[in-house]
Amino acid sequence: MSITSPRGFRAAGVSAGLKTSGGKDMALVVNDGPRHDSATVFTTNRCLANPVLWSQEVVKDGVVRAVILNSGGANCYTGPEGFQTTHAVAEQVAERLGIGAIDVVVCSTGLIGLANPRQALLDGVDAAYGALATDGGSDAAEAIMTTDSVSKQVLVEGAGWSIGGMAKGAGMLAPALATMLVVITTDAVVSADDLDTALRAATRVSFDRLDSDGCMSTNDTVTVMASGASGITPTLADFTEALTQACTDLAMQLLKDAEGADHEIAITTINAATEDDAVEVGRSVARSNLFKAAVFGNDPNWGRVLASVGTTKAAFDPADLDVAMNGVWVCRSSTPHTDPSEIDLTGRDVTVTIDLKSGSERATVWTNDLTHAYVHENSAYSS
Amino acid sequence: MSITSPRGFRAAGVSAGLKTSGGKDMALVVNDGPRHDSATVFTTNRCLANPVLWSQEVVKDGVVRAVILNSGGANCYTGPEGFQTTHAVAEQVAERLGIGAIDVVVCSTGLIGLANPRQALLDGVDAAYGALATDGGSDAAEAIMTTDSVSKQVLVEGAGWSIGGMAKGAGMLAPALATMLVVITTDAVVSADDLDTALRAATRVSFDRLDSDGCMSTNDTVTVMASGASGITPTLADFTEALTQACTDLAMQLLKDAEGADHEIAITTINAATEDDAVEVGRSVARSNLFKAAVFGNDPNWGRVLASVGTTKAAFDPADLDVAMNGVWVCRSSTPHTDPSEIDLTGRDVTVTIDLKSGSERATVWTNDLTHAYVHENSAYSS
Repeated sequence: MSITSPRGFRAAGVSAGLKTSGGKDMALVVNDGPRHDSATVFTTNRCLANPVLWSQEVVKDGVVRAVILNSGGANCYTGPEGFQTTHAVAEQVAERLGIGAIDVVVCSTGLIGLANPRQALLDGVDAAYGALATDGGSDAAEAIMTTDSVSKQVLVEGAGWSIGGMAKGAGMLAPALATMLVVITTDAVVSADDLDTALRAATRVSFDRLDSDGCMSTNDTVTVMASGASGITPTLADFTEALTQACTDLAMQLLKDAEGADHEIAITTINAATEDDAVEVGRSVARSNLFKAAVFGNDPNWGRVLASVGTTKAAFDPADLDVAMNGVWVCRSSTPHTDPSEIDLTGRDVTVTIDLKSGSERATVWTNDLTHAYVHENSAYSS
Repeated sequence: MSITSPRGFRAAGVSAGLKTSGGKDMALVVNDGPRHDSATVFTTNRCLANPVLWSQEVVKDGVVRAVILNSGGANCYTGPEGFQTTHAVAEQVAERLGIGAIDVVVCSTGLIGLANPRQALLDGVDAAYGALATDGGSDAAEAIMTTDSVSKQVLVEGAGWSIGGMAKGAGMLAPALATMLVVITTDAVVSADDLDTALRAATRVSFDRLDSDGCMSTNDTVTVMASGASGITPTLADFTEALTQACTDLAMQLLKDAEGADHEIAITTINAATEDDAVEVGRSVARSNLFKAAVFGNDPNWGRVLASVGTTKAAFDPADLDVAMNGVWVCRSSTPHTDPSEIDLTGRDVTVTIDLKSGSERATVWTNDLTHAYVHENSAYSS
């Protein structure tokens, strides 16, 4: 179950010496066709890394033939020289593969403001090219890890076609994409336009609703490539459903591996006037450090849920809100109901349900608790 | 230097048994006149505690004769019975003082969703009334402390008049008021309308720019009362300046006592197109858990500053931003400049300067670092 499970793809993961650990740090994914349809979504951050600035141009015509990824440096705010490094990497990939650089997406992850060593990257491209294999997906997934403790991969089977995926990301998981790089492959026949429609629908309810620590990255990229090698054309609905399943699976893997987290928290807002309201309410709770610290302490502090809900513009009556944690309704009509001591928060999975009583829409936003380990990992990251 | 330094005020701080520690937990502040002008600002949270719902009605006519405050319970989301408790407390104060309950502001702080014991509060009112003294300001300041490690007081002298203040708040310090209760007294002659104008101007650049942890409280209240006992009428400009000085001093005391913080961080955005842009940019950085954790680790991670700036709608060119930390310009024109290793973050005070190069406005937002102690205190708070 990897990005090389669908037909028409080769991949590799190698060490280019970017990580001080000496581990794998460069990955190459190649779509050998016969088709090269693609779609990509990027971070909505206005401060963009050089690989994103480059790749935004690459994806415009809907054709992507290869994705080259490196960990060990984000190549963000490294100036014109940093952009030239990204460009040189794309050119090197293109030359090896005999394609145009303008069909090569580049992704980087790591520290901002640190120049990537260009020669090491170019040598890494050569090594990755030499290691390309039809079963190289797992190596590639390993090479894009940073503070991830496990590699993230997925495979969703269709009727004679499939979708494979890999992701990296373990912190800075926030709205409109987590800090993450995701490559998805499929051997279904899907046009670039349909891929774009399906990808936006899938990310909207998966990666976009993951809000681990409220911090939005400068490098997030999700690219899907379709080789058409199965010769089968699924309906857009079927493909979108499978792609959504793949994205949600990867998103949950990211959530479970968030830096230093002790709990995965699913915040579901029900009976909202609009889906946007439900997402806004969920996100406000997902961003409450006080609430997240309470969950770390296994403390069902629903007052901190309502204090967050009250900061939103969603439609609701402040005097008529219901709140449940792990299925126990601790607050009904904005008044204490079941004794919170009946809630057991010692397990990893925590659910929060907020009933706005203002409509029939709903949405779930996922986050993690705020722990000592989070503070530790993120205070030591660049040291 | 306390709320009883200006003439015309008495105050008391007593123990009503609300705090398990047995410490002082109720405060009463009385304006003996001859004038009773006042102004108040509240949290902008839509989920409001019962004392806020009550006090919003009290302040409407610009007359406040007394403020009764308790720690040990926020009386928020405690249902109709909680509102009745607030009302009963106001009535008890009014009866003792021979005034109307509709001139009594009530403030509560502590856990949300926990009913306050009504009889203990009423007995506390009696005890506070019996302890009222013209030098009782410091006792009152002590009684409103919750997780505060020190009481916060201020005195600003005018020409023949003065402003005294007290504040509580040690966490949940966020926009549009920190979690805090503030009472300010003055013996200047100032009309209710002028007090309102001055208070809004003062809080806008002080309490409203404190963003310790991004969490907005349900109980925040800042009340200013003017007794007119000095017989002196300052100009509105002079009074506003003194009031701003008092509010800023209290805000800095709150900042320095934020739960578990190791650093005070002043984020100044310069050359912004508008003051709102400058505040938005500052607040985005103040809310970045990643950046705040880095400061805790004495790590000058300016990439996390830019990643936050990029999430705002402020006017700027992403390719032309300058960033300094503690006066060292680590980023010029969005490119690495001085080596970050020249920055020493071991002191408590940290400054971040962001040059948007888009205008001539500026603003400073204050926050704290994200520490192990913050996580600890806020995971254990209600346990």
